[in-house]
Amino acid sequence: MRFHSPSLNKSGRYRWRTGFSVSTSKDTLAWYPALVRVEDLGTPAALVDLDVVARNTSRMGERASRLGVRLRPHVKTHKTIEAARLQVRGHFGGITVSTLAEAAFFAAGGFRDITYAVPIPPAKLPEAADLSRRLDRLSLLLDDSVVADAVEECARERGIRLSVFLKVDCGAHRAGVDPGLNDSVALAGRVGSSPHLDFRGILTHAGQSYRCRDAQEVRAVAAHERDVMVAFAGRLRRAAVRVDEISIGSTPTLAVAEDLAGVTEVRPGNYVFFDATQVAIGSCALEDIAFSVLVRVIGRYPSRRELLVDGGALALSKDPGPVHVDPGCGFGLVLTAAGEPVPGMRIISLSQEHGVVRCPHDLTAGQFPVGSLFRIVPNHSCLAAALFDRYAVLRDCDVVDEWRPVRGW
Amino acid sequence: MRFHSPSLNKSGRYRWRTGFSVSTSKDTLAWYPALVRVEDLGTPAALVDLDVVARNTSRMGERASRLGVRLRPHVKTHKTIEAARLQVRGHFGGITVSTLAEAAFFAAGGFRDITYAVPIPPAKLPEAADLSRRLDRLSLLLDDSVVADAVEECARERGIRLSVFLKVDCGAHRAGVDPGLNDSVALAGRVGSSPHLDFRGILTHAGQSYRCRDAQEVRAVAAHERDVMVAFAGRLRRAAVRVDEISIGSTPTLAVAEDLAGVTEVRPGNYVFFDATQVAIGSCALEDIAFSVLVRVIGRYPSRRELLVDGGALALSKDPGPVHVDPGCGFGLVLTAAGEPVPGMRIISLSQEHGVVRCPHDLTAGQFPVGSLFRIVPNHSCLAAALFDRYAVLRDCDVVDEWRPVRGW
Repeated sequence: MRFHSPSLNKSGRYRWRTGFSVSTSKDTLAWYPALVRVEDLGTPAALVDLDVVARNTSRMGERASRLGVRLRPHVKTHKTIEAARLQVRGHFGGITVSTLAEAAFFAAGGFRDITYAVPIPPAKLPEAADLSRRLDRLSLLLDDSVVADAVEECARERGIRLSVFLKVDCGAHRAGVDPGLNDSVALAGRVGSSPHLDFRGILTHAGQSYRCRDAQEVRAVAAHERDVMVAFAGRLRRAAVRVDEISIGSTPTLAVAEDLAGVTEVRPGNYVFFDATQVAIGSCALEDIAFSVLVRVIGRYPSRRELLVDGGALALSKDPGPVHVDPGCGFGLVLTAAGEPVPGMRIISLSQEHGVVRCPHDLTAGQFPVGSLFRIVPNHSCLAAALFDRYAVLRDCDVVDEWRPVRGW
Repeated sequence: MRFHSPSLNKSGRYRWRTGFSVSTSKDTLAWYPALVRVEDLGTPAALVDLDVVARNTSRMGERASRLGVRLRPHVKTHKTIEAARLQVRGHFGGITVSTLAEAAFFAAGGFRDITYAVPIPPAKLPEAADLSRRLDRLSLLLDDSVVADAVEECARERGIRLSVFLKVDCGAHRAGVDPGLNDSVALAGRVGSSPHLDFRGILTHAGQSYRCRDAQEVRAVAAHERDVMVAFAGRLRRAAVRVDEISIGSTPTLAVAEDLAGVTEVRPGNYVFFDATQVAIGSCALEDIAFSVLVRVIGRYPSRRELLVDGGALALSKDPGPVHVDPGCGFGLVLTAAGEPVPGMRIISLSQEHGVVRCPHDLTAGQFPVGSLFRIVPNHSCLAAALFDRYAVLRDCDVVDEWRPVRGW
């Protein structure tokens, strides 16, 4: 009954049969014995729909090609070798990570060109430098002159060159230099002229896209993201700073961007799974969501039209979701076990191992008895997926594989 | 530099030297070589203050003794053998868990009497029944007649007796039967009269205590919790249902309860670590908090008085905290690396691996440079601790042990 039954992991386990490629045609998988069905899984369980992942990754790959930019997908949403291989199919193979633990894991998995897209503090440089020796390239981010000094010193001491991006704030106001300041140009020049550093260029993340209300608003953010970066690169080049890469990326902006002239590289990540927030802000449709959490009804309270499920904050995360678009969104979208929407159902509260689901109508006799299954689409798949040690990979309702994400830092 | 250095895990590792006992006197630990200091840890890192855990667990143990109730502490906040041993010191040794994975882990760790305090769905019964054979007692919760049938059938088929509590709703409106209904009495009677079930009694959790604004309000909830349960037990006894246990428990109500006459058992859990929410609602003082997350400054933005730290939603959780008491609480309390409060600092936003800290005053030149360390006390320690595979256990700023929590389901 538990998902990690040995029978699944031996002969029944679906394997990538042609290196990095995967077929999305069912016929080619007809040989696969469906040892485990979704309803056999212990709950809560993380579910990944393989065909939807394959479609999402193909579409983003085609989109990047059509826009004329290199695709360096972010792997932080799923943190698995298998999904990352689908992301880079047909592209140059570079990826983006959010932790050094991810960098080491994907390096061990055969990825050779990795950007660690969180500003690095000096204390993490020894580990990053060691890792960079095992890769074709590990690029680091910085936005602070103290860090620039430390990175240069680290490279000099070890007799290596470290690849560096200057992180730019294009309006998210989280990390990055202000592209309007002379200090920012000076910092780029200082990094670009160091014999110990390989200055790759400039990099940004339009995180403000997640605060948009619809695709039209996101489109404006996408244009701004591009314009700020292209203008800043121009300013740097006029100051004789060589800028090879102009790297941008967020799933919402990439989903709607129409023209990325001047941009060289994009780094979307969430699109592999998507989630309830991406649907609400117009980045995708419900059928594009590849990740959900299987839960069971463990309590039934008709007098208050509520069900209790065994997916709580440790299975779904407490991300508040797109409350700026839908104040009553609750903690995720409620689907049947087969993945069909259940209109009007809302998850009104989460505690550690409990989720309370409010029904729109009176519960009729026998409706949703204890033991009933639901799939919950989380508000934020990056945070929910990270709560699981394994994903049950499905085609329709058959479990065809198990993927193991890396975790920690 | 990484915490899991082999040197720490070999000769330097602090071990419990007398079975379940641990000394809280520093002198007895003077032999311990401080191989790792807090400032040597990779970030983000989960920190546990050993002396505070020992004090919190001693105090709750004394409190339960003084109130004349058995202590069956909940272990879901920390999920470690080490802290659970401290919790049961001087008591009968029973514990409470929130997942079957915890039940199996603590069973393997020598705990013999475990209550799984989440309503069990039929699909989890085979695993629970198997586990019950390895324990003196595994008690299950139910509040639904369909489940009562399934538990009885499971016990009958296997030729075992399963221990059962009836879960009661004392006002939290999450799980449990309504103690005012005849159906609830009938369900207790039906379980109590089964030859295959060992009906232990009634159990509740006053989760509404977390919505209180101060200790006075919590005290009223605590009295209500006790009164509802004692009255319901009386009703059951008048209906000839034997009720051995009246089990209550939440850290806030236990922290303030003055009289638990009639109650037999208490199940607090969060008090081992406490957190920012417990401080806000009056359950504890700041110095009672034993859990925090060590983070490093990775960005510095004086123009908006902000710092960026490497503790994001995957290190702190997105629990909104005690917004009903302090709407501006942000995502945790900011302390120095040594554990002293930094007044006015607020964590205003979290993304996956980034936390934005707003400072109350302008950042002066050189103040909090990149690399500076903070400890963040999370809003909800249960959710934050579950994000880590290991805790660095400290005495003052020396790392004296590493605890490994169980995770998953």
